[in-house]
Amino acid sequence: MNGGPLDGVRVVDLTTVVVGPICTRTLADYGADVIKVEAPAGDLLRTMARGSRNPGMSGKFINFNRNKRSIVLDLKKAEGLAAMKRLIANADVFVSNVRPEGLARAGLDYKSLAPKHPKLIHCSILAFGRGGRYYNRPAYDPIVQSLSGVAGTLARATGEPRFVPMVMSDHTSGLIAAQAIGFALYRREKTGKGEAIDVPMLENMASFVSSEHMGAMTFDPPVGPSGDNRLLTPDYRPLPTKDGYITVAPNTNPHAFGFFDAIGRPELKTDPRFDSPGSRTANSAAYFEVRKAGLAQKTTNEWLKIFDELDIPAARYNSIDDLLTDPHLTDVGFFSAEDHPTEGKIRRTKPANTFSGGDRSKLTHAPRLGEHTSEVLSEAGYSNAEIETMKAAGAVR
Amino acid sequence: MNGGPLDGVRVVDLTTVVVGPICTRTLADYGADVIKVEAPAGDLLRTMARGSRNPGMSGKFINFNRNKRSIVLDLKKAEGLAAMKRLIANADVFVSNVRPEGLARAGLDYKSLAPKHPKLIHCSILAFGRGGRYYNRPAYDPIVQSLSGVAGTLARATGEPRFVPMVMSDHTSGLIAAQAIGFALYRREKTGKGEAIDVPMLENMASFVSSEHMGAMTFDPPVGPSGDNRLLTPDYRPLPTKDGYITVAPNTNPHAFGFFDAIGRPELKTDPRFDSPGSRTANSAAYFEVRKAGLAQKTTNEWLKIFDELDIPAARYNSIDDLLTDPHLTDVGFFSAEDHPTEGKIRRTKPANTFSGGDRSKLTHAPRLGEHTSEVLSEAGYSNAEIETMKAAGAVR
Repeated sequence: MNGGPLDGVRVVDLTTVVVGPICTRTLADYGADVIKVEAPAGDLLRTMARGSRNPGMSGKFINFNRNKRSIVLDLKKAEGLAAMKRLIANADVFVSNVRPEGLARAGLDYKSLAPKHPKLIHCSILAFGRGGRYYNRPAYDPIVQSLSGVAGTLARATGEPRFVPMVMSDHTSGLIAAQAIGFALYRREKTGKGEAIDVPMLENMASFVSSEHMGAMTFDPPVGPSGDNRLLTPDYRPLPTKDGYITVAPNTNPHAFGFFDAIGRPELKTDPRFDSPGSRTANSAAYFEVRKAGLAQKTTNEWLKIFDELDIPAARYNSIDDLLTDPHLTDVGFFSAEDHPTEGKIRRTKPANTFSGGDRSKLTHAPRLGEHTSEVLSEAGYSNAEIETMKAAGAVR
Repeated sequence: MNGGPLDGVRVVDLTTVVVGPICTRTLADYGADVIKVEAPAGDLLRTMARGSRNPGMSGKFINFNRNKRSIVLDLKKAEGLAAMKRLIANADVFVSNVRPEGLARAGLDYKSLAPKHPKLIHCSILAFGRGGRYYNRPAYDPIVQSLSGVAGTLARATGEPRFVPMVMSDHTSGLIAAQAIGFALYRREKTGKGEAIDVPMLENMASFVSSEHMGAMTFDPPVGPSGDNRLLTPDYRPLPTKDGYITVAPNTNPHAFGFFDAIGRPELKTDPRFDSPGSRTANSAAYFEVRKAGLAQKTTNEWLKIFDELDIPAARYNSIDDLLTDPHLTDVGFFSAEDHPTEGKIRRTKPANTFSGGDRSKLTHAPRLGEHTSEVLSEAGYSNAEIETMKAAGAVR
């Protein structure tokens, strides 16, 4: 057993790239036993991302696939598909991000599996939900960022549609899939029954964007334009100091008034543009101008000291590389050294959240392609001779 | 009862703005009974966001607070704090995004509550985790975007640090808090015990960014620079067509080769820069140049028809406002009309995910400040006379 809240939960994971792998990594980080089923070519992320010591073991793949075991099954071969179904028979959860029509053709859809496995939790991560015209269309993250309004938020802020430079739709939807699986595991304890969950990426990201930016268009007829203009102001960004950047968020009146004093503009406390949270939001652009002019006068460290004393939310700006030396992250041991058996010394990040009832204690390395094929098949009841026959036939690897 | 996987789960919600409210909205959307405890001034989001018909009922507040009930308690008054503790005594889950020192002073930290309430799940959403030097510092979303590398990803893509124009750290961490609560609810069914969960925003977002962008720096020593250069290419965005924008994601070989044929560049199929997923990632900038030149030749609709026939992932670009008329979202009934009892006709988005075991059926409107104070206190066992006395003393409203 691994420890962690999901200790003892067994997950069969037929997912690739990021949306599924971050879902199952989350389940694994919090205790589940995740069996990653890969096609003979392996998860595309093994080779698509740059930066590796050995082929098929990119840094990005490693980051999204720790704490899992890898088995290679060729689902186009009868024995491979039969092995898949035997794994599912022993599992609590089956997650896939395969297109629904393909899943049904293989007999791996919920309708086909549920009669024999009434306790199975069957989670389908879909690009587009059932009942809509894009259902079953192929998609990757930028497709969903393009359709869901994520790129539209940057267009409003900068004048040009642009993706968030992370696979944000994948990553967020995958985290939500893990959430939904947790909810279904809870319900199964109450009812004794499994169920099918659909997690459509477009709908999840449209919900994300519209919750933030419907704003005045929440009302019908709208009481104003869409968009939270505070977030869409071009200067909503870390602002330049004498020697770098700083972020300061004086949102409440005490914070804002303390900030006005600190930059030597006490008269702004009674300026009707800035005297309440609502008026500061309505005058976001002007409020950012005030911040910009004030912040340029001192260095980042000078400001941080001042804002710390005033208890005003403020922070330095970290580049991606700066994360490795961030003092708080260092304090909490966010990065640790791992000796990967084939990839050598690597940096491993710790799961962000802690559970007083016990966290996962058994940590395992990101698997090489098919590293656990024999072990997992053997646990599923296959004899060594059977496994050798399947290998010879190319059904497993 | 509400239906949904979390049917019967009772949540006391001492959170404000977005990080806590999206956590508890998620719990509520999937069936929990969420009691939103507000200070007499109300959640800052009621007034901070623009766009409302009546004071204190901004569109953004409405979007993040549907399906909840609101009670106003003044926790600085003894009777208000006593009522809070009585609510918690009847709850399965207590969620807060109050700074930990403040929570402890009120006796609402896990250590104070656990002895009397061993089954309580106590979730603290923190800006910064325990054990690190920023612990207990104040923070809002941009502070975390600035420190966690989110702004750093846009700096790499555009040359200038910039926030994602959504409260992405809040929103994502809140979704993760709901996930963690689901895991703890599952474990409680197994063990009969509650527990404390810490959800630190900086650590969660640093995990998000570093999973995506550690890349070659996952290895120690690094095998190359950090960053997934495919995502950090300046042209990683919806690309211009003759009459608008389009997003196309030809990642696999079949998709890429079909794309090269479609734009009349079949020779690129054997170009060593573009002949495999890995080589296309290594030459991301050049691959985007090829796409840009090709896509400019036709209109968005012409391309969409071609890519649909070739089964190549592609999509139009939606602005925030376009979401309201997106054909797929319309098909699935993503937006529905709601008659809010005080705010009139509004647009409500549906929860993105579906559960075959049953979804929440009882939908309720976003509450006015203190709308359910008497109802909730009465359920907690207070008599009408007691409630009136507390109101007169200003402890509840």
